[in-house]
Amino acid sequence: MGEYRAPLRDMQFVLNDLGGLGPVSSLPGCADVTAELVEQVLEENARFSEKVLAPLNYSGDVEGCAWHDGQVSTPKGFRQAYEQFVAGGWNALQFPTEYGGQGLPKIVATPVMEMWKSANMAFSLCPLLTAGAVEAILLTGSDALKQAYLPEMIEGSWSGTMNLTEPQAGSDLALLRTRAEREGDHYRIHGQKIFITYGEQDLTENIIHLVLARTPDAPEGIKGISLFIVPKFMVNADGSLGKRNDVRCASIEHKLGIHASPTAVMVYGGNEGEVGEGAIGYLLGEENRGLEYMFIMMNAARFAVGLEGLAISERAYQQALAYARERVQGRDVAGSAGAVPIIRHPDVRRMLMSMKSQVEAMRALAYGVAASTDIARLHADGTERRRHGAFVELMIPIVKGWSTETAIEVASTGIQVHGGTGFIEETGAAQHLRDARITAIYEGTTAIQANDLIGRKIARDGGAVAKGVIALMRATEAELAQAGASDADLAAIKGALAAGVTAWAECVDWVAAQYRSDIVAVHAGSVPFLKLSGIVTGGWQMARAALAAHRHLAAPGASDAAFYRAKIVTARYFAEHVLAQAGGLSQSIRHGATSIMGLDNDQF
Amino acid sequence: MGEYRAPLRDMQFVLNDLGGLGPVSSLPGCADVTAELVEQVLEENARFSEKVLAPLNYSGDVEGCAWHDGQVSTPKGFRQAYEQFVAGGWNALQFPTEYGGQGLPKIVATPVMEMWKSANMAFSLCPLLTAGAVEAILLTGSDALKQAYLPEMIEGSWSGTMNLTEPQAGSDLALLRTRAEREGDHYRIHGQKIFITYGEQDLTENIIHLVLARTPDAPEGIKGISLFIVPKFMVNADGSLGKRNDVRCASIEHKLGIHASPTAVMVYGGNEGEVGEGAIGYLLGEENRGLEYMFIMMNAARFAVGLEGLAISERAYQQALAYARERVQGRDVAGSAGAVPIIRHPDVRRMLMSMKSQVEAMRALAYGVAASTDIARLHADGTERRRHGAFVELMIPIVKGWSTETAIEVASTGIQVHGGTGFIEETGAAQHLRDARITAIYEGTTAIQANDLIGRKIARDGGAVAKGVIALMRATEAELAQAGASDADLAAIKGALAAGVTAWAECVDWVAAQYRSDIVAVHAGSVPFLKLSGIVTGGWQMARAALAAHRHLAAPGASDAAFYRAKIVTARYFAEHVLAQAGGLSQSIRHGATSIMGLDNDQF
Repeated sequence: MGEYRAPLRDMQFVLNDLGGLGPVSSLPGCADVTAELVEQVLEENARFSEKVLAPLNYSGDVEGCAWHDGQVSTPKGFRQAYEQFVAGGWNALQFPTEYGGQGLPKIVATPVMEMWKSANMAFSLCPLLTAGAVEAILLTGSDALKQAYLPEMIEGSWSGTMNLTEPQAGSDLALLRTRAEREGDHYRIHGQKIFITYGEQDLTENIIHLVLARTPDAPEGIKGISLFIVPKFMVNADGSLGKRNDVRCASIEHKLGIHASPTAVMVYGGNEGEVGEGAIGYLLGEENRGLEYMFIMMNAARFAVGLEGLAISERAYQQALAYARERVQGRDVAGSAGAVPIIRHPDVRRMLMSMKSQVEAMRALAYGVAASTDIARLHADGTERRRHGAFVELMIPIVKGWSTETAIEVASTGIQVHGGTGFIEETGAAQHLRDARITAIYEGTTAIQANDLIGRKIARDGGAVAKGVIALMRATEAELAQAGASDADLAAIKGALAAGVTAWAECVDWVAAQYRSDIVAVHAGSVPFLKLSGIVTGGWQMARAALAAHRHLAAPGASDAAFYRAKIVTARYFAEHVLAQAGGLSQSIRHGATSIMGLDNDQF
Repeated sequence: MGEYRAPLRDMQFVLNDLGGLGPVSSLPGCADVTAELVEQVLEENARFSEKVLAPLNYSGDVEGCAWHDGQVSTPKGFRQAYEQFVAGGWNALQFPTEYGGQGLPKIVATPVMEMWKSANMAFSLCPLLTAGAVEAILLTGSDALKQAYLPEMIEGSWSGTMNLTEPQAGSDLALLRTRAEREGDHYRIHGQKIFITYGEQDLTENIIHLVLARTPDAPEGIKGISLFIVPKFMVNADGSLGKRNDVRCASIEHKLGIHASPTAVMVYGGNEGEVGEGAIGYLLGEENRGLEYMFIMMNAARFAVGLEGLAISERAYQQALAYARERVQGRDVAGSAGAVPIIRHPDVRRMLMSMKSQVEAMRALAYGVAASTDIARLHADGTERRRHGAFVELMIPIVKGWSTETAIEVASTGIQVHGGTGFIEETGAAQHLRDARITAIYEGTTAIQANDLIGRKIARDGGAVAKGVIALMRATEAELAQAGASDADLAAIKGALAAGVTAWAECVDWVAAQYRSDIVAVHAGSVPFLKLSGIVTGGWQMARAALAAHRHLAAPGASDAAFYRAKIVTARYFAEHVLAQAGGLSQSIRHGATSIMGLDNDQF
């Protein structure tokens, strides 16, 4: 297995040179979020991720979780790591100081979370789900519920889960059946939930389940779903833990990947719980608004899963690179006395460049969205808040959908770099593919992201926000033209970016124009459109990276020339090999629906 | 898990309508290879594959193989299935009648093997390796060796293995260290081999290892490698089994996929074998010509692995299709009263069309190569033999490299169709991805196939054979223009094919022109060039399928209209969504080397 080394230099480049950190530091309340503080936080987190989390990644995969009579054991070392995680204050990093959080902005939490996910994606899912539950309670909880649950959840001594899916209701939550009946100040919950990440575990003393369910008189469909808090152990008035609630983990799944993350079947009601018939739950917010609340929280969750795509890709890249440097096999095609490290073979370089360039594009995209999330929340000027908020809304399905689909490709390429050794589990490369595969499915499949992108994010405003982004991309093109008139790298990047932006722009127009007249065609092209959107916005960020590197190299007394030269070459690779797909995708999107929809069901 | 149903109708379409079977039936010695015989063989094999092999696919994956003290147990049911396999005469199908084979041509053996591989890829590897060993002995063995080994190996009561790889020698066999010292009429073999498929098992009474090794005075590098027969049990003069040879399975690997196929570490010499110090081996052919023999046999092995890509894709498609028909989730985007089967969702259709169209393209390509292999071997006219032989040589790396890379994509798409259920191992969709992943690695990685394609198959003859194929493609274009002047489907296919052929032609010219002047650049683009080659030759076959279907539909009293209409729509999908990538690939191939090779090793 490869070790993990946090890519601090690359992270700092994005934070400092692509404009992530600067604008956030000048936001109200962020004066202490200085480059120095961030560097310190990232270095400390790097040590924790490298030394504590990363060594448990492979062993956790091999051992997996075990279920016995409703109890779940996480793999060896996970409890101790989680204790250190809580003791180090990591769980509290991004939450409001009011409830014990550290209140750091998303632009700082994002590289921190990237490291956890790279080091040990399965482990990182526990705090990720807790964060989702914390957000939901912050958003919708009464003061009493906040006081009762948030301090421990933010500290990390209690975890949180999100209970949405049921066997018949996955992407389609309208089909939910779990029911909640009012009983005094609380509700009694009955139903079965599946695919509940960390639904049961042995890391924390209590687990706070957030559960979607229907009240008896609720309207049908998605407008009749409410959100409830269901603690595993009841919480007494003094904050101590009381009786066991009537909720139980019936089994855990045997999955392709993330073996160390228990995926539970949860049964609410009808168990041997001490509190009697039905799990006791407390309504969050108002009845029938549960899905609405979920939508508000969705951005954070989808962003986090997109970040998993980046993080697994980074890990897979590091592992492949280490092997390519060390494995000696075959002569240099340009001539060598004997066998050479395979990194010298052109196709191995192509694979590594493909991994590296897409990792860097995903990171630039994600951190940019993180910064805009902070600006949208904190900026003094409402126009700026709205502008960045709209950018975040547009980008979330792209970050989620494109980064996760790309992660599958990158992890698979990582196996290929290893040759036969990559197929052997002990190598560790295969685990990255197995782990990455879920990211394009949970928190909304790629098709769900693509639906969101074409419908709510493009068609609803006629492509106005996207056109604003296109204007920014055209400005980057102009900068490239100015900076690189005589520079072959920048010229190549500019050419590919211009073609990519044109392809995206024509598809944005097409989606906006056709959404009402031929919605089936727009849906048929939606996932390719999402891919095109990722490629072009990622290519734009890579172009910005090349410009930033070019400025560094042109500065008097420039240092770190090899690093900045690499940024430019990597951006050029992305332009020539990834952005190059834009034209073909645009054709397929705008002209390909007839053949997608041409067969009757029984002709398949 | 999904059941497997042999796609006999699709197979027959390729055999009968794309010109696979007809030309072979008219070859010398093939008069009895009639459409009726083939239909009968395929139907019988379909029953065996569906009823005996397919049900063991998932259970074999879960149970895997077990190693204990040098012995390997295959999963439950494999022994009985193998007995039936041998009893049914399946192992003997494609081998010469002289040694007990049935002598059927490759065009018949190919769909038969496709079914085994779809039904149970892990199982099918045992006869596949035996076939490789049989070919080697047929090619190089003395009469005595042939008589001693072939009848049982062809029957299947003994299996065969191929021992090439060593820890330090994978793609680069020049680094082989296993040594063979002459001792009377035989040699003593010492060394360690890894990644030996079915190197040890409990299915057959003897295992015949073919082993690459160096004699003491052999030249260095690839010109000093010899090929040996090393039986697990010595064979007495009367054909009975004698003492245990000094060869032992030291362990088996824990792999991402094909769990039911044991991948062995084999140790030759220095064990407790009864025959003493060093495994007894018999030279095949002449000393130092081992790698040359391997090269001759390589086509069959690489073709077979390409066929695995097709076969796994077919299985993954069937499973995804069944789920898409049955799973009810979400409303029809064009409007529906309630939730509908997900096959009605445009993106699910897109995924299914992507799988279906690529499966059909792979099949048409593979069967075409199988027919040409027969013609190259048996045709009365030497010019025809050479023409088809050259076509086979060109196509083998494409069938191997493109079909296996595509299989990974198709199997991953199959998971995506299932949503969260696809990530659960019990569903069976994930196994296809895990199994498919090896196909792009063993029998030469995709990069090795691409090297072969650009070097031996394109550059060596200046692209002459490829240009001959391009002329055939242009003829197909002309046919499309004639048949489909007023047909939107055929027009769309013609447009995409024309652009694809142009893209391929410019890259063929570029490879031929640059190979000597800038070999590094050609190697940097080699894998994308292989992908382009697969897309364009696959698209050509799909265009031929559309023309054949068009002819059927235009015939008086045409039946099966839905089937033939589907062929046309599927070809159009391939044209609009897969062939559409050709232009971008051509750009990347011809202009993308600078950025691939732009970093120093320490800049990664």
